[in-house]
Amino acid sequence: MRKFSVGVDFGTLSGRAVMVDVSNGEEVAVAVHEYTHGVMDEKLPDGTPLGVDWALQHPQDYLDVFHITIPQVMKLASVSPEQIVGVGIDFTACTMLPVEADGTPLCFLDKYKNRPNAWVKLWKHHSAQDEANKLNAIAKKRGEKFLSRYGGKISSEWLIPKIWQTVDEDPEIYDAAARFIEAADWVIWQLTGIETRNTCTAGYKAIWHKHDGYPSNEFFKALHPKMENLVDEKLSQHLLPVGTKAGTISAAAAKLTGLKEGTAVAVANVDAHVSIPAVGITSSGKMLAIIGTSTCHMLLGDIEKEVPGMCGVVEDGIIEGFFGYEAGQSCVGDHFQWFVENCSPAEYKAEAEHRKTDLYALLTEKASALKPGESGLVALDWWNGNRSVLVDVDLTGMMLGMTLATKPEEIYRALIEATAYGTRMIIDTFEENGVPVKEFYAAGGIAEKNPFVMQIYADVINREIKISGSPQTPALGSAMFGAVAAGKKAGGFDTIQEAAAAMAKVRDYTYKPIPPNVAAYKKLYAEYKILHDYFGRGANDVMKRLKDIKKEVRG
Amino acid sequence: MRKFSVGVDFGTLSGRAVMVDVSNGEEVAVAVHEYTHGVMDEKLPDGTPLGVDWALQHPQDYLDVFHITIPQVMKLASVSPEQIVGVGIDFTACTMLPVEADGTPLCFLDKYKNRPNAWVKLWKHHSAQDEANKLNAIAKKRGEKFLSRYGGKISSEWLIPKIWQTVDEDPEIYDAAARFIEAADWVIWQLTGIETRNTCTAGYKAIWHKHDGYPSNEFFKALHPKMENLVDEKLSQHLLPVGTKAGTISAAAAKLTGLKEGTAVAVANVDAHVSIPAVGITSSGKMLAIIGTSTCHMLLGDIEKEVPGMCGVVEDGIIEGFFGYEAGQSCVGDHFQWFVENCSPAEYKAEAEHRKTDLYALLTEKASALKPGESGLVALDWWNGNRSVLVDVDLTGMMLGMTLATKPEEIYRALIEATAYGTRMIIDTFEENGVPVKEFYAAGGIAEKNPFVMQIYADVINREIKISGSPQTPALGSAMFGAVAAGKKAGGFDTIQEAAAAMAKVRDYTYKPIPPNVAAYKKLYAEYKILHDYFGRGANDVMKRLKDIKKEVRG
Repeated sequence: MRKFSVGVDFGTLSGRAVMVDVSNGEEVAVAVHEYTHGVMDEKLPDGTPLGVDWALQHPQDYLDVFHITIPQVMKLASVSPEQIVGVGIDFTACTMLPVEADGTPLCFLDKYKNRPNAWVKLWKHHSAQDEANKLNAIAKKRGEKFLSRYGGKISSEWLIPKIWQTVDEDPEIYDAAARFIEAADWVIWQLTGIETRNTCTAGYKAIWHKHDGYPSNEFFKALHPKMENLVDEKLSQHLLPVGTKAGTISAAAAKLTGLKEGTAVAVANVDAHVSIPAVGITSSGKMLAIIGTSTCHMLLGDIEKEVPGMCGVVEDGIIEGFFGYEAGQSCVGDHFQWFVENCSPAEYKAEAEHRKTDLYALLTEKASALKPGESGLVALDWWNGNRSVLVDVDLTGMMLGMTLATKPEEIYRALIEATAYGTRMIIDTFEENGVPVKEFYAAGGIAEKNPFVMQIYADVINREIKISGSPQTPALGSAMFGAVAAGKKAGGFDTIQEAAAAMAKVRDYTYKPIPPNVAAYKKLYAEYKILHDYFGRGANDVMKRLKDIKKEVRG
Repeated sequence: MRKFSVGVDFGTLSGRAVMVDVSNGEEVAVAVHEYTHGVMDEKLPDGTPLGVDWALQHPQDYLDVFHITIPQVMKLASVSPEQIVGVGIDFTACTMLPVEADGTPLCFLDKYKNRPNAWVKLWKHHSAQDEANKLNAIAKKRGEKFLSRYGGKISSEWLIPKIWQTVDEDPEIYDAAARFIEAADWVIWQLTGIETRNTCTAGYKAIWHKHDGYPSNEFFKALHPKMENLVDEKLSQHLLPVGTKAGTISAAAAKLTGLKEGTAVAVANVDAHVSIPAVGITSSGKMLAIIGTSTCHMLLGDIEKEVPGMCGVVEDGIIEGFFGYEAGQSCVGDHFQWFVENCSPAEYKAEAEHRKTDLYALLTEKASALKPGESGLVALDWWNGNRSVLVDVDLTGMMLGMTLATKPEEIYRALIEATAYGTRMIIDTFEENGVPVKEFYAAGGIAEKNPFVMQIYADVINREIKISGSPQTPALGSAMFGAVAAGKKAGGFDTIQEAAAAMAKVRDYTYKPIPPNVAAYKKLYAEYKILHDYFGRGANDVMKRLKDIKKEVRG
């Protein structure tokens, strides 16, 4: 009898289940459910208006994903519940909510459903920026050593600023919350009936460290007196490493999902991080970049090092037994989209329409015909600030080398190259700080669909690039963790390494560096680096001064 | 009886005559003749092909301008030859040709008409670049002091490189040429029957100095042995200051033009320089900028100073008794055109079409709504290199401050502002080197037609800007010099100052600096200056290195 595992990937707008054959990783069925409430950024379901930069979700949508997509993939693949050895999930993060002691979301209660802070705050909920700024200032003043594990800054997207916002704005909700929990862990609770917490979101988003734990009660007290005992009262010190079993499908969850009661359920995981074993990475020295509108870089290391500008380093955060490093570029696909929308001439649009293609394809075709260095352009990829390695949201874009003969496709290519230089800067910074990057893998929309961009990346970083073999990389990774939760005896695997050996997938072709391009990009990257350091490390803070002037003028 | 003067302005594609009332400067008639042969940049009239960067003209076209336009303005204005006291002309420069001793162009002779070097080399003939490079290297090595009068570099557009090209490529033509002469002086020769040379083209284009004369025979010998006696044999040591009389209309010229034999003819002049008195400038401290595709800045000074990066300083070069300073920006309107053609999105084009306007007007409207500093952008206006004050064709464009919210009109405005900063840099450099700029005047297409750009200039340079009152500024200036050639007794004027008092024109409104804008631009210009010096004065020669890489790649 074939054995399967189900991976469920909770994205920003929808959730999808994938049915995967544990013997070979074949994805035999996929089902998607768009969240009924999507991203709530203007009002609550009852019409209560939301402030600027709010982004909430409805927990019922997550339950609906289980209820709709799991039965659907079983039906599509003609797989019986007995054939399913395990379930794993991955989620966006930090996406968090306040719940009662039994796991009931506060927003499900009539008395709180018109209170914005009672709902799920999505990863891109940005209205806790003030709290994040204050938190960073206090941590810096107190000399909290955790700061250095996060590139010197805690993001407004993470757990503690989001909780603090609740204390500030609606202390009654804070008091009513028995728990603040990642949605990732909450959905696992709904499957198993047991509260668990995973080391991945705790480490990357909740300032938790395997040996040092959470920040001290004194630190939390310094944020707000009410928060002094936050950890003991509303979080959990009991964390399970990713790759372990959270529990089994409860009777209620069996009814919800159609799965068999007692089916193994893996500890929750994060969409980016769960992708690592899905491409076959289970040891140190291999970086995975998920390249889409922005890029997330993950890398396993054998020891804990402080690398400037990374987004976090977490022991057991990605694969048990390794230090999981994360870095990021805040503007990649967004960059190209900005250019296409704002700077492509009408003549090109007409040509694209005439040839029944789109502007991206046309610009790619024209830019492909150029050789590295032929345009004479170099850009700094900071249109949305710089995450790694400078951790500075106030940096802005720069381009130079333009002449009266400069064409749009040259600018387009220079923007792509700039993001590749940004990736190389991250790789070099890891290596210079004792965390080797021997191999490079890529997943995500751009990695999968844009050979032109990927070849430039291979040439710039001078490394062969392997591409994820699955169009559903996170869901595949989740299914692998489901199979590991089941264990070998139940038809799964005892370790993620074994699961990866059987189920992980990369495409059968790779992008290999082309030597003359590598040589040209070596020279161009040297120029990028000089400009990167000049504008990014304080020699000329013109970008910040211009931002200050801009703010002043806009009032 | 009303008295008139005729000004004839020889441009790149056409010549125009203007009939001007000497009592008040009223332009009573204009006639234009498009050159039949235009700019010959691919082949000679007989089909002989031309090389890359050639740009020739046909002398017959100039004669046709006299023959067609002068009778036409007399007819249009119902002015009789007796009413015309004088004639003046202005020309593009350096536009030069080889002629026989009687003034016959070599290209008029059957035996030479298929020889490219026998024709008129237009100002923008650029194929003598090799000769210019060698000339500069030799002059530098020899420590020729004339270099500093020209910002350290002799342009390939000027007289000596163009002559040297003839020596290199077609020595027989060099030998056959009794004279090499500016077309400006040649057309005066055709009117008067007498060879004269003017101090303006000699000083700005032929390395002539009022006290030092031309470079030495040794220098010319170092260029090429054949050129040792160039000055004595083929140029002229006898130069007349602008503002003097070259002669009178000959019998032949009377027949050609319909003018009365004996009518006074002014010494030749250059289109830009002749515009100075046309806006009323006849004393030191007043700068005129002619702002079009590129910008030419002229300024009168009381003493000779070496100002870094100017295009030339010539005693009596603009107004007798003053040192005429020239500077330039190589890319102004061209800049804006590049942006409109290459970087305006289809959506804007559609909006412009829908509103029955054009992209320039639409971008201007949108950019006008922005306040200084609001975009957070700053650019270096070097898309076509930098003429003044850096004199470096290998510099390229730069822009910074872009975010994902940056709009096309913000970029457009930043490009306009960058050219204004470039103008301010020129003004400041003159002032810092002892040549005061107390007043600022503007003429040319952009000055006349673009109030949005001119207000930005006024705000950036923090000076009131007066605009030329004539749509034919050079022709008006030429007519004024024609009236001065005639003299007061004949119904003209004895000095250009008197002519200017009666005939010069500025518009009745000016652009006045707006204090809050001035304050904002002061800060932004400080940022421009830091970047200007960083990229332009050797701290980071990235632009040149990128150009080198580009050349290498393009092969």
